[in-house]
Amino acid sequence: MKEHLFQSLVAYIESKIKQQMWLAGDKLPSIRVLSFEHNVSKNTAIRALIELEMRGIIEAKAKVGYFVCQDKPKNLLPEQLYPKLTPTEVAVPSIFYDIMLRSAAFDILPKSTEQSMSSHLIELNRHIGRALRNTSHNATMYYDAPLGQESLRIQISERYRLRNLNLHHDDFCITSGCQHSLFLALLVTCKPGDNVAVESPAFYGVLQLLEQLKLNVIEISASAEFGLDLLELEKALVNWKIKACIVTPTFATPSGAEMPGTARQQLVNFANQYDFAIIEDDIYGELSFSKVVAPLKSLDTYNRVILCSSFSKSLSRDLRIGWIAAGRWQNNVVRLKLISQLASCQTQQQGIATFISSGNYRRHLDFFTTVLEHQRNQLVSALQKHWPKDIRFTVPLGGIALWVELDKNIDTEKLYNEAIKQDIVITPGNLFSISNYYRNYIRLSFNHPTVGKRLKAIIELGNILAMNNTDTCL
Amino acid sequence: MKEHLFQSLVAYIESKIKQQMWLAGDKLPSIRVLSFEHNVSKNTAIRALIELEMRGIIEAKAKVGYFVCQDKPKNLLPEQLYPKLTPTEVAVPSIFYDIMLRSAAFDILPKSTEQSMSSHLIELNRHIGRALRNTSHNATMYYDAPLGQESLRIQISERYRLRNLNLHHDDFCITSGCQHSLFLALLVTCKPGDNVAVESPAFYGVLQLLEQLKLNVIEISASAEFGLDLLELEKALVNWKIKACIVTPTFATPSGAEMPGTARQQLVNFANQYDFAIIEDDIYGELSFSKVVAPLKSLDTYNRVILCSSFSKSLSRDLRIGWIAAGRWQNNVVRLKLISQLASCQTQQQGIATFISSGNYRRHLDFFTTVLEHQRNQLVSALQKHWPKDIRFTVPLGGIALWVELDKNIDTEKLYNEAIKQDIVITPGNLFSISNYYRNYIRLSFNHPTVGKRLKAIIELGNILAMNNTDTCL
Repeated sequence: MKEHLFQSLVAYIESKIKQQMWLAGDKLPSIRVLSFEHNVSKNTAIRALIELEMRGIIEAKAKVGYFVCQDKPKNLLPEQLYPKLTPTEVAVPSIFYDIMLRSAAFDILPKSTEQSMSSHLIELNRHIGRALRNTSHNATMYYDAPLGQESLRIQISERYRLRNLNLHHDDFCITSGCQHSLFLALLVTCKPGDNVAVESPAFYGVLQLLEQLKLNVIEISASAEFGLDLLELEKALVNWKIKACIVTPTFATPSGAEMPGTARQQLVNFANQYDFAIIEDDIYGELSFSKVVAPLKSLDTYNRVILCSSFSKSLSRDLRIGWIAAGRWQNNVVRLKLISQLASCQTQQQGIATFISSGNYRRHLDFFTTVLEHQRNQLVSALQKHWPKDIRFTVPLGGIALWVELDKNIDTEKLYNEAIKQDIVITPGNLFSISNYYRNYIRLSFNHPTVGKRLKAIIELGNILAMNNTDTCL
Repeated sequence: MKEHLFQSLVAYIESKIKQQMWLAGDKLPSIRVLSFEHNVSKNTAIRALIELEMRGIIEAKAKVGYFVCQDKPKNLLPEQLYPKLTPTEVAVPSIFYDIMLRSAAFDILPKSTEQSMSSHLIELNRHIGRALRNTSHNATMYYDAPLGQESLRIQISERYRLRNLNLHHDDFCITSGCQHSLFLALLVTCKPGDNVAVESPAFYGVLQLLEQLKLNVIEISASAEFGLDLLELEKALVNWKIKACIVTPTFATPSGAEMPGTARQQLVNFANQYDFAIIEDDIYGELSFSKVVAPLKSLDTYNRVILCSSFSKSLSRDLRIGWIAAGRWQNNVVRLKLISQLASCQTQQQGIATFISSGNYRRHLDFFTTVLEHQRNQLVSALQKHWPKDIRFTVPLGGIALWVELDKNIDTEKLYNEAIKQDIVITPGNLFSISNYYRNYIRLSFNHPTVGKRLKAIIELGNILAMNNTDTCL
């Protein structure tokens, strides 16, 4: 009934735009006006606007209103699938451990080229080296403080201030990386048998966590462009007690989706209304190619959002330094950190802190995001040129990966085994779901330039796919 | 009945020694002869020998037999207490977190002096610095292998070969430190509500782990000199299903006790007979002042011993690098490591590996154990000179701490609060038990020299104790 009303409103606004009554860049009537003119509740009007925003037809500007989007050059996006909204025990495919052993989660040619390091990373190692040389006897005789080094937490909180999140540096606790933060977040919010909502497709590291912690997963449909589908989440919330929702609102892996502002606000509202924890994986948050994206935590009103991140994707995977800001669960998180790993490396934290405060980190990010955007374009061109014409893929505005939907007949686990014979490693779609939904999807990373051997690998994969589009042996 | 038999045999052998029929250094009759002459089973004879070994009256020499011990200069050892053998939920005193915040678990004057670093540790930092400078682009783009760096695991397995433990380097998995190893060991062997046996007094880090993982603890009486009491453990095993026994056979904290060989063998036999996991905390294993002590894992016949350790005590607390050799549970441990913290720092591992292979680690240990033995003597002299005459304490042959029993009327939590006013931090006995057994005990570390301000602090503590021996206000 209610759904019917909001859908009519969606259709009405869509027709206005199609008929060019409202043009790209035009401001839409306010929620108050829409609800008055169409005789629907404000809530219904908001639903309609979220739906239109999710579809990329309109966009919200904070505290101003809703605007008709500029027409974007269309590329075929992977289809959004709608998993069954029932809690399920997790069993992670063993293929993942095989990929981990090849250290190749984000590369199709593991360790094939010895690229030279960027000057920024050489500078980072200088900072860590300096911290090491300045180590006093005491650093070797005492463990790090429970929260981690203050100097680093100050730098982290200042980085977030630039992204519209104002937290005190004592609100952060240093961890061994983002995966460790997610692990702590789940341990403090859930117990075995509890239900946890995840985006579908989901980050496989999260699915593994849920498996090991014996938590049930509810996969919530997510759009390849706008992330978590709030209407689907609400259906799940109505039917099931959900203790936590793990979400990557900014450049989710595998799709690179970015949740629009209204959907983020709605997610926080749901958390308050249905009493669950939001675990925000912000690991790609600083890897935006153009605008600055505020973390979801900046909308947190009741300390329900647990922010998790690290420097692994933005700086170096060899730094085992992450952080967590766990709101109401912070004290328990610190205790669990102490018992699960006691402390972090002080000199490494000190080195990163001076690397950031000296401005090197900002300069590195400026450089690195430009490189990533360029590499995304390289990969997109290669796919358009060398892969079957009917593939669909995302073109993310940040992060390090895109999500490809292949022909329905392709089984990407078979493709994985086929490719591995030629030392090419792909990340098959099955890793991103426990329900076999993404059999014909793969994630490709643009963490490396698609040139030379890597371009050859992409062409080779295209050849395998072309052969199999005709005789479907994969 | 059986107990009666072995006790008569104990009494018989004791009387022989007292009457000087058997002199110090004499070899005892073999187990076969004892059982034949006294008409008891071999098992009963073994029990009697274990009991005498635990009391320090005889000692075992591997594959040779039992010998009457040399008379040692007697010092009063802390009394062995016998906790009730029932599983209990753990609630850790909050005072521990206060001590952790002061970063002072092993120092009475936290961060008071900026000692200069030993040349070995400067050399270690050079090795890590070199590894950092030699980092390729790849190290920043890929996570460490699931097991950790091979070069370091080879060095670790070779260190153990010197201690009579022969494992392949792939039997080891690198972790974030010994606490992380213990955490993983408990997660793979137990589920919430299971019973875990620990030594009493126990390491507080273990008690906290049990609390957070919702495991029940059974405290097993341990001698201040010979560690875990196997007779008490057997009583517990007969009455309760025990899933794991956490033990520090070599220089246990807080007492510095060292389990004799026969008791170690008996513990492994029990694990096989009663089907439980032995979690061996070997963190002090290389800090022996004279002889080389083999880890308990070297007696492991059915892959039931999980060896956990790190470089934190022997080298530097700023290295967040530990290891685990989990026998039959190794695959699960590696999976849990991946989901709980993904990877370790590669350059740090590489630096430690070259530090060890260059011989620097061996030279450091030679130096460091000599220093520790000297500092133990300093602390013992200070206690004998400045503390009440009726105190009892251990004089360990390795490790970094000793265990002091004070007058029965002293409440060491009150002493803690009294001392803190003068910026002196002690580690009260209550931390080492969940049953309030060690109210009048404290652990003192000889990790730092007892000179200057630290000697003054010991004298000051002695004064507080002397005052309170008379009017018992503590």
